[in-house]
Amino acid sequence: MCTTCGCPAPLAPSSPTLVHVGQAILAKNSDYAQKNRRTFADKHILAVNLLSSPGSGKTSLLVETIHRLKRAYPISVIEGDQSTQRDAERIRASGVAAYQINTGTGCHLDAMMIAQACEQLTLTEKSLLFIENVGNLVCPAEFDLGEAYKVVVLSITEGEDKPLKYSPMFHAADLVLLNKMDLLPHLDFDVELCIKNIKRINQRAPILSISARDGSGLDEWTQWIRERV
Amino acid sequence: MCTTCGCPAPLAPSSPTLVHVGQAILAKNSDYAQKNRRTFADKHILAVNLLSSPGSGKTSLLVETIHRLKRAYPISVIEGDQSTQRDAERIRASGVAAYQINTGTGCHLDAMMIAQACEQLTLTEKSLLFIENVGNLVCPAEFDLGEAYKVVVLSITEGEDKPLKYSPMFHAADLVLLNKMDLLPHLDFDVELCIKNIKRINQRAPILSISARDGSGLDEWTQWIRERV
Repeated sequence: MCTTCGCPAPLAPSSPTLVHVGQAILAKNSDYAQKNRRTFADKHILAVNLLSSPGSGKTSLLVETIHRLKRAYPISVIEGDQSTQRDAERIRASGVAAYQINTGTGCHLDAMMIAQACEQLTLTEKSLLFIENVGNLVCPAEFDLGEAYKVVVLSITEGEDKPLKYSPMFHAADLVLLNKMDLLPHLDFDVELCIKNIKRINQRAPILSISARDGSGLDEWTQWIRERV
Repeated sequence: MCTTCGCPAPLAPSSPTLVHVGQAILAKNSDYAQKNRRTFADKHILAVNLLSSPGSGKTSLLVETIHRLKRAYPISVIEGDQSTQRDAERIRASGVAAYQINTGTGCHLDAMMIAQACEQLTLTEKSLLFIENVGNLVCPAEFDLGEAYKVVVLSITEGEDKPLKYSPMFHAADLVLLNKMDLLPHLDFDVELCIKNIKRINQRAPILSISARDGSGLDEWTQWIRERV
């Protein structure tokens, strides 16, 4: 594992102690993830983990998603950020319950944090749970939270090469959303090449082009959710 | 420290072993960083560490910077990415030496990687060394590489709240570059509010508005470098 991060990377010469610690961290996370998964299954809750770089538009997407789905399903949201309560406040303003986790200098959500947040949210049966991870295209890929699906959001402002450069995240995705498509006329972004790059890393994940700002593609996205509740 | 990342975050209940391992990681990094700093000082090399989210335009900015400065100074570049040699290839195409570090699943560059890369680059006296860190607005903030300055690049497509939400990175910055200003007419981005947010976290770092695409602000940026060589 990476001696500096807890992720399983073959970087620096690792001592047996460091390898042991890394394995212990991921094993402990896996235990909590399995517990979360059983809780979600018992209550028929669909848990979706949203992952991306900072500023890809995850919160705006969630607000639009909530507007479209809140009459059909009870919805709760767990928000992850290093600092501030801003995202949870934005979500609550859209009319659903939200719990904010602040990770301090931490770089990802782990399964134990999700378990603790779920206790605070008192989740209802047959509901939707969105987890917005810390904005980070690296570390959160390694941590199973017990979610049913990992949805990776890529803002097209980030460039079409990101799936190749951050391959573990795109490899882990169950769905990829290309967001901010409304900006396409103003960018040097090759949509076809980006899709080709995603498919080089992950052939099973569907890819949807969306804009949380102008609403394009959101019917397909909410349909993807409805089919899985 | 964060039990899952090696960063000093007060997240989960830490065992004494984990705390010890985290301290050992950062202490070892600090030793290498001090060695790098001495090497750079002995050779009169200005080392600049560029940090940002994925897709903020660091490599494009470096290419434009090299075009403007390579006749004045010898320049070398260390590139950090999880996968691919793409960024080093782009830098070499602009006419200077580049060494690519691939971190695998790792989330940041550390000082030992920089020491090893410097051996491969055979740095010349009185030169400029740019280090492009892994695109990650979280973990790289914690790792001193022995650089003289940390320059944080924020693409304005990411939103003006990022300095508050990713405060450790902005707190560590010696200079903040607001990039992609050419896209301002197409975004809901409040420049004044963003600058105010940065200043809430960091009052000492100057802030420059730039566009690597249309060249605006790059004279001020290269002047900032020239004053520090």
